[in-house]
Amino acid sequence: MLKISQKGINMPESPIRKLVPYAEAAKKRGTTVYHLNIGQPDIKTPEVALDAIRNYDETTIEYSHSAGNVSYREKLAKYYNNIDIPVTSDDILITTGGSEAILFALNTCCDEGDEIIIPEPFYANYNGFATAAGVKVVPITSTIENDFALPPIEEFDKLITPKTRAIVICNPNNPTGYLYSKEELQQLKELVLKHNLYLFSDEVYREFCYGGHTHFSAMQLEGLENHVILFDSVSKRYSECGIRIGALVTRNKEVIKTALKFGQARLCPPGLGQVAAEASLDTPKEYFDEVYNEYISRRDFMVSALNKMEGVYCPEPKGAFYTVVKLPIDNSDRFAQWLLEDFSYEGQTVMVAPASGFYATEGLGQNEVRIAYVLKNEDLEKAMKVLEEALKVYPGRKL
Amino acid sequence: MLKISQKGINMPESPIRKLVPYAEAAKKRGTTVYHLNIGQPDIKTPEVALDAIRNYDETTIEYSHSAGNVSYREKLAKYYNNIDIPVTSDDILITTGGSEAILFALNTCCDEGDEIIIPEPFYANYNGFATAAGVKVVPITSTIENDFALPPIEEFDKLITPKTRAIVICNPNNPTGYLYSKEELQQLKELVLKHNLYLFSDEVYREFCYGGHTHFSAMQLEGLENHVILFDSVSKRYSECGIRIGALVTRNKEVIKTALKFGQARLCPPGLGQVAAEASLDTPKEYFDEVYNEYISRRDFMVSALNKMEGVYCPEPKGAFYTVVKLPIDNSDRFAQWLLEDFSYEGQTVMVAPASGFYATEGLGQNEVRIAYVLKNEDLEKAMKVLEEALKVYPGRKL
Repeated sequence: MLKISQKGINMPESPIRKLVPYAEAAKKRGTTVYHLNIGQPDIKTPEVALDAIRNYDETTIEYSHSAGNVSYREKLAKYYNNIDIPVTSDDILITTGGSEAILFALNTCCDEGDEIIIPEPFYANYNGFATAAGVKVVPITSTIENDFALPPIEEFDKLITPKTRAIVICNPNNPTGYLYSKEELQQLKELVLKHNLYLFSDEVYREFCYGGHTHFSAMQLEGLENHVILFDSVSKRYSECGIRIGALVTRNKEVIKTALKFGQARLCPPGLGQVAAEASLDTPKEYFDEVYNEYISRRDFMVSALNKMEGVYCPEPKGAFYTVVKLPIDNSDRFAQWLLEDFSYEGQTVMVAPASGFYATEGLGQNEVRIAYVLKNEDLEKAMKVLEEALKVYPGRKL
Repeated sequence: MLKISQKGINMPESPIRKLVPYAEAAKKRGTTVYHLNIGQPDIKTPEVALDAIRNYDETTIEYSHSAGNVSYREKLAKYYNNIDIPVTSDDILITTGGSEAILFALNTCCDEGDEIIIPEPFYANYNGFATAAGVKVVPITSTIENDFALPPIEEFDKLITPKTRAIVICNPNNPTGYLYSKEELQQLKELVLKHNLYLFSDEVYREFCYGGHTHFSAMQLEGLENHVILFDSVSKRYSECGIRIGALVTRNKEVIKTALKFGQARLCPPGLGQVAAEASLDTPKEYFDEVYNEYISRRDFMVSALNKMEGVYCPEPKGAFYTVVKLPIDNSDRFAQWLLEDFSYEGQTVMVAPASGFYATEGLGQNEVRIAYVLKNEDLEKAMKVLEEALKVYPGRKL
């Protein structure tokens, strides 16, 4: 036998994708599967982006700059300036999706065995990137009882060791939909300064804040210019997940210089995606208004439908398009599989993401699932009905 | 000060790109700079690929499959079958450029501190990926006197330790243009079997073999099915470097399964690039004939021009579009910089890649540079004239 690396063995399987074979089997049996499991919105990509692709007129698709096209970075800097994030194009490294920004930051700031603290539940792929980079994820639990607010800062303090390099937040949060307040970010600032840590802030859902709540970016924390590394992506903002364009943004010159070396090794971010992403910056305001109205209507319907079900609790998400819901079930992995394998209601079922995959602490999230409200209301309505009926008859029901 | 990781500090700067500021300054002074330093061909992307982009008709640019679109993988498997590489779509993982295939293979097969043996001079970014993955590169020197043929197999044997995981070859070779023979590959096969190693074979220049020499793929070595991991890319084949589409191909089921976990973490390879890459598989044979004729004419002109210069030796490259040339100079880094900073001939100069950056052994490549013959003959002719004149007056000339 040839050796598979320990990191390859430890590499987690995506909790979102591991149920895919069951979903495929269900579809083969003729069952309609409503996908509440993935963050693939059904929203259309802005016309300006699609037009830019259709009008592509180069005759040789050349490498771009390793940091991304200058024209794109300059325009992107203006976008940030417009939302009160003071950066220049030199503070921006265009990456292959937000994913690569995470990996570059880990590689730039952490060596094998270093630690990062992340409030759980968290975006499951942080685990994967940490494993790839040889970095240890130290979870700090946020609870559904507290609507997944930032855990008390003294709990963070207890977890810090000489190997701690960074605190990682996702704001608005995937998977919980929680939106961190300015006060919570100020608390993190004190902590980060006290222990001389990095603050990695994943803000790819920035545009998705509801009910009058506004987004406060970690990049707006004064005195933290050298500490904050922003992860960004156009995937959700413009519903163009497939183009794989993100960004690592920081005013820390050493970090951006080092991250660029990782960027040079892989030559450049995707060229056609950059064309679409740059054009997307001209998306008219009406597009976002429409998207906002759509999501808020979905959210309101879903939260209300869920909370009407016996034994179900869904906090009201303030941002992004996910929610972590408490269900009256024994085991969310078993439940999610059962939904696909053994259950259907009027020829339909739903696919949900077991929340266990979003926790690093063993045993947590057993009675929680993540639901992405990325379906149009008509389908969401059907999906909620299916879920309600499923909970009534699930053999592992546990109130 | 916030910590920058040791791997970030050790991350090599690209030897190809570090001269860029000098080139920019030369251009600002009005000097024409002929770029012999980079592998960015001036060849046009096939029309079928550009048409596919212009006719893109999806309304939402969604995530693709983490392993790449099924339709693309199936068509790509047929391409391999047509060139006698027997694989199925399940043996293929579409990656973000060949770069990501290298990184995935290292992460899948090697842990921190493991070793890979690579004949030097080698593609400089292997260093970067090895650093990112915490893997140690062990060089084995091939020499210009021997036209950069595979070093004697007993020299490999001496370098193998319990930490050796893989031998890495690039065939046809970047930077040397050497094409490994079937016999050389058979020797590697014995070595790999004897020590139970992986053989990573980077074959992104497969289509660029000249003078009746045919390409023999490591994937064609019988009995090595579990050992060989192929790195591939559409960048050079179809002159579409910017789309960032490559592939990791192997019949080792454990490897492909593990590599896919790294692939799932980053969600998917670029979607628009996949559209172009899939369409490129329909590129008519005439396109390749034309490209072949163009490169062979450039190569023949360049080799002959170089070998006519006093003190210069250029082996005849059998593949790819690079050559490593011995020059009568003291130091190739100094020479390359001098060309841009202090020299011009009739308002022109050339940019070359110092070969030192392609060697891992300190001190080697000092009197060698890599030249990419990616310019049309008219410009190549001027560039050769400039180089000839430069060598005559370079203060560090050393015959």
